[in-house]
Amino acid sequence: MRYVVEVHLKPEVSDPEGAAILQAARALGFDFLSDVRVGKSFEIEVKEGTEEKELEVLSDKLLVNPVVETFRIRRDDD
Amino acid sequence: MRYVVEVHLKPEVSDPEGAAILQAARALGFDFLSDVRVGKSFEIEVKEGTEEKELEVLSDKLLVNPVVETFRIRRDDD
Repeated sequence: MRYVVEVHLKPEVSDPEGAAILQAARALGFDFLSDVRVGKSFEIEVKEGTEEKELEVLSDKLLVNPVVETFRIRRDDD
Repeated sequence: MRYVVEVHLKPEVSDPEGAAILQAARALGFDFLSDVRVGKSFEIEVKEGTEEKELEVLSDKLLVNPVVETFRIRRDDD
């Protein structure tokens, strides 16, 4: 069973890396972008029978800085 | 319209950051994990009418190192 935990900065936190990518993309002619935000994506393989709740606890304790980041968990069936 | 471009190391490329997280998680008692891989997640806001194909070109040129990374694009409707 595989899950993906996606971690992003909260909307009110500024993201200089995303801003730099946006600027570089526009300089290269990609004018269809209006915003870019950079985050992390954790691909996590878990043992059968693991509940999503357990992954939430793990994310809170180890993967996310709750002061500036939020996260989403989704099952990855690809 | 928002898309997420998820970038991960290819399976054959070693991921020391993921390995460190796996080890730390087990030391904290999270024994339900069998593998952790760390990647990036780009949240990209695009203008109406932008096609996914254009995002593929952007990802290839600017966001991904095709030698060691792969990517997936998905529409983000949350």
